[in-house]
Amino acid sequence: MEGKEEDVRLGANKFTERQPIGTAAQSQDKDYKEPPPAPLFEPGELSSWSFYRAGIAEFMATFLFLYITILTVMGVVKSSTKCSTVGIQGIAWSFGGMIFALVYCTAGISGGHINPAVTFGLFLARKLSLTRALFYMVMQCLGAICGAGVVKGFQKGLYENNGGGANVVAPGYTKGDGLGAEIVGTFILVYTVFSATDAKRSARDSHVPILAPLPIGFAVFLVHLATIPITGTGINPARSLGAAIIYNKRHAWDDHVMDILGWAIHWSCSCCLVPPGSHQGNPIQEQVMSFLKRCCGFCHISYF
Amino acid sequence: MEGKEEDVRLGANKFTERQPIGTAAQSQDKDYKEPPPAPLFEPGELSSWSFYRAGIAEFMATFLFLYITILTVMGVVKSSTKCSTVGIQGIAWSFGGMIFALVYCTAGISGGHINPAVTFGLFLARKLSLTRALFYMVMQCLGAICGAGVVKGFQKGLYENNGGGANVVAPGYTKGDGLGAEIVGTFILVYTVFSATDAKRSARDSHVPILAPLPIGFAVFLVHLATIPITGTGINPARSLGAAIIYNKRHAWDDHVMDILGWAIHWSCSCCLVPPGSHQGNPIQEQVMSFLKRCCGFCHISYF
Amino acid sequence: MEGKEEDVRLGANKFTERQPIGTAAQSQDKDYKEPPPAPLFEPGELSSWSFYRAGIAEFMATFLFLYITILTVMGVVKSSTKCSTVGIQGIAWSFGGMIFALVYCTAGISGGHINPAVTFGLFLARKLSLTRALFYMVMQCLGAICGAGVVKGFQKGLYENNGGGANVVAPGYTKGDGLGAEIVGTFILVYTVFSATDAKRSARDSHVPILAPLPIGFAVFLVHLATIPITGTGINPARSLGAAIIYNKRHAWDDHVMDILGWAIHWSCSCCLVPPGSHQGNPIQEQVMSFLKRCCGFCHISYF
Amino acid sequence: MEGKEEDVRLGANKFTERQPIGTAAQSQDKDYKEPPPAPLFEPGELSSWSFYRAGIAEFMATFLFLYITILTVMGVVKSSTKCSTVGIQGIAWSFGGMIFALVYCTAGISGGHINPAVTFGLFLARKLSLTRALFYMVMQCLGAICGAGVVKGFQKGLYENNGGGANVVAPGYTKGDGLGAEIVGTFILVYTVFSATDAKRSARDSHVPILAPLPIGFAVFLVHLATIPITGTGINPARSLGAAIIYNKRHAWDDHVMDILGWAIHWSCSCCLVPPGSHQGNPIQEQVMSFLKRCCGFCHISYF
Repeated sequence: MEGKEEDVRLGANKFTERQPIGTAAQSQDKDYKEPPPAPLFEPGELSSWSFYRAGIAEFMATFLFLYITILTVMGVVKSSTKCSTVGIQGIAWSFGGMIFALVYCTAGISGGHINPAVTFGLFLARKLSLTRALFYMVMQCLGAICGAGVVKGFQKGLYENNGGGANVVAPGYTKGDGLGAEIVGTFILVYTVFSATDAKRSARDSHVPILAPLPIGFAVFLVHLATIPITGTGINPARSLGAAIIYNKRHAWDDHVMDILGWAIHWSCSCCLVPPGSHQGNPIQEQVMSFLKRCCGFCHISYF
Repeated sequence: MEGKEEDVRLGANKFTERQPIGTAAQSQDKDYKEPPPAPLFEPGELSSWSFYRAGIAEFMATFLFLYITILTVMGVVKSSTKCSTVGIQGIAWSFGGMIFALVYCTAGISGGHINPAVTFGLFLARKLSLTRALFYMVMQCLGAICGAGVVKGFQKGLYENNGGGANVVAPGYTKGDGLGAEIVGTFILVYTVFSATDAKRSARDSHVPILAPLPIGFAVFLVHLATIPITGTGINPARSLGAAIIYNKRHAWDDHVMDILGWAIHWSCSCCLVPPGSHQGNPIQEQVMSFLKRCCGFCHISYF
Repeated sequence: MEGKEEDVRLGANKFTERQPIGTAAQSQDKDYKEPPPAPLFEPGELSSWSFYRAGIAEFMATFLFLYITILTVMGVVKSSTKCSTVGIQGIAWSFGGMIFALVYCTAGISGGHINPAVTFGLFLARKLSLTRALFYMVMQCLGAICGAGVVKGFQKGLYENNGGGANVVAPGYTKGDGLGAEIVGTFILVYTVFSATDAKRSARDSHVPILAPLPIGFAVFLVHLATIPITGTGINPARSLGAAIIYNKRHAWDDHVMDILGWAIHWSCSCCLVPPGSHQGNPIQEQVMSFLKRCCGFCHISYF
Repeated sequence: MEGKEEDVRLGANKFTERQPIGTAAQSQDKDYKEPPPAPLFEPGELSSWSFYRAGIAEFMATFLFLYITILTVMGVVKSSTKCSTVGIQGIAWSFGGMIFALVYCTAGISGGHINPAVTFGLFLARKLSLTRALFYMVMQCLGAICGAGVVKGFQKGLYENNGGGANVVAPGYTKGDGLGAEIVGTFILVYTVFSATDAKRSARDSHVPILAPLPIGFAVFLVHLATIPITGTGINPARSLGAAIIYNKRHAWDDHVMDILGWAIHWSCSCCLVPPGSHQGNPIQEQVMSFLKRCCGFCHISYF
């Protein structure tokens, strides 16, 4: 690992001028400090107020996310003609835009995950402790259930008759298609989050930290544009779970198998793509990497 | 209060590295200065030009906001088929986009409220004096009435026959549904405004002050996507009032009961979520908090 | 003038903490330098390369603006059902988005006007010399004619049969309605441009210079959302002229009367709203202001 | 060349105050360093890890780009009524938004080209070596083929019956129309990329490096709005090639003739418009320029 890391730094220094579009080429000598990996358990965290405030923020953000998006979905599906509603594109804007606004609002408090898949990915990269990751995921799922519940409370009959915003594989697609679509969709989202929060690139390119919430929101928007016709897009397990539990049918667990697979595959891929500095000295990662080395042939010959 | 506040600062210092996505983790040691709460009455304000300029800017912004949005609504509702118009989604863009552009333009002059609910929320947080808050609200309502009046002047017959852009609870929903939708909608808007203008986070995260008008506009856009089918979205009391007075029917007061309730509930909630530094030493807030402590059980055990 | 200007500065200093949302309240002591008014004639300009490069950039930007927007309009109007096109909303995005992208691209070369109304407004505020303003306007009109001509070249029959993207007052509206809509639309655009380019606010609020092209593009988008059903939105005289000349019917001059009136009224209003520092010591402005003082009563009692 | 360059610098210094909208007029004295032209062959590059990481990033970005966009196109075309899909406008958002998100993510790793036309344009401007340009183009084409292949794998029957997202000239247009539309479209994209990455303007205007990915994405969005009805918009040769190869019919080569012509013409034009500092001392450019000088008359009298 160290050799590769050094090689990267060497390349970056030596070929500075050749960095083709590097939009802030003038400022490559800014100071940059990689944070150490988070410990698995951090007892001190549990007695600090900021830990619980972060959990409340995640709850509130997931609640508002589900409330606005499921309400938008209900407004569209209940209408006989889509032309007199905001349309499928409006649903995609609703999901993407809420993520943009909520990441903007909560990034400074909890990190702005709003999605157990993002929390899980960041935990694997050792950006937060296991305690915090579990606490976030529980709060996200509770928030999602409450958000979907409030929408159901507003319009009970409508909600039951129109699918409740739950994710199902559309007719004409196999479960495998849905699984594939969810895997790539989750990958795109988590890849964007990792790019937006990489400390090395934040220090080098001025657009990275400033625009950060915008591409994350756009990634969600784009995945919805593409996969709403396939599964309704459940790249957020909390969103799938909340809608499914409140809608109270058998859709919840199918989706979650997909999402869990999506996490695993995402993470193995994101290891390859995010600048390597962000995953060093992490024993779990080392294990996964040595496993991946054995699995996939070509890619790893050139990489590891 | 002081103990909790200190705890937060402690947590923030101690767990710096664990701030999961904190997009500007490198710059947490920037200087940060909390402005003191605004006095209730500030006599000197009344003799300064900037006070009146701010009022004129609020008038102008609300005028342009109502003009563009009501004109867009008229263009959509007068058409028999929504496909040959900008559609319901276009209406949502119109509201959200105008707020983005006008907050951008007037943030440096008046603070860019454009909405009595925002002014009221910021007054409760003691960001502006009572005198200024009242002056702003009067100017906003006057601007809204003028804006809706100009649209009515352009297309009198159309305006009367098509509802005049006034907010009504749609058939199939109870008044309670409309009230609930307005409460949560106003909460989302004011929550975003508080997040965008928090001094502590502006100092820490570089994306907070720079992107500020964008998430505020997006919050308005998203609430419209979700609640246009329910009430037509009246999260801006000046907009509801202006459209209702010019349309000249009995819709004005129903909505305002909703909005007033929305303010009260919003504010009690936003107390919980915005970083606590922004509401210290404010006697009204202390009252409301002690009231809330007695009301809601669980949430406040962990919080206060 | 000096007294008022001083009053403003006084107010700004004294009531610093009360600036309600001022998103960059920490940095109000940045240095700020008002550029002197541009001379009417600047002979040295004519022998510098940057003068001609700016003109070429304005030509190119207006050419691309007309090309993309008229092509989008043609793609929508030629279709029998708007649902299988990008729709009226897509037309509005096309106009607004092109202005965003082109202002971004040419702001550093020519200032990114792309619109004779903007050039005229900035000339009245003495931001550029008469020579440069005339040169820009001529290049913009030439670019617009070429852009519309290229679209006509692509699809001659279609172009003639579908109105050629020229601006006409829609049936059901009087010429007065169209005139009013154009006046307010042009005002919104130029007001946003003035806000985005004000030197005092650029120094104080960090979001002003960085986001600048975005609200300008959004202003164009929003005016199109609202006024496409009335006149097709001709707030850009070069765009109206280019489309009208190439379409070769009698629409050109009607619109231009509107636009000229819009300029005059805009400018008198923008005097009231943009921070006063930007128009001092300009003899033409003094004349217009003393005229306005005599005309309008109330507003000027509190202002001048 | 040197004389003109000096003239520009002279003009820029002398007429500083007259730069009309220059949104960051206060900071014109920032240090600015033009990177030297990249060598044609750089042997050291081939042994650095960052070279291969950049190639993998280009592959991944083009893969995700094709996957999301072709899936969106499939979702729209398979539906009998466009109203129940994201619509043609949604397709345009998909292309533009993916470019925005992917340029944001990969700008710091590979430069964020994602498009052989962009790579070729930047190679001609000597921003990257021939070795790197060829490597990027191969990876982009491979990524595009894989991305289109994954979509075909998901929905084989649908894919074959609905054109597979391949670019064809629509009925009613000649091949010349399609060629012209592609040329101007590619020009707009590459012009925006050159503007966003110009080192001189990045140093002077603070909005240039920070917003950079946004106008690039918008340029793609706008070109799609305009030219989807003509050719389906193939301004990205990798996208055209990938879709055509997977769709396995005879559309691939027609388009590529267009794109190659588009590159050549774009580049000759972008020479005129981007600030001259970016192409000095490049023998290939000197050749092309002297050729252009002989070809076109008027334009070059004032320019060269």
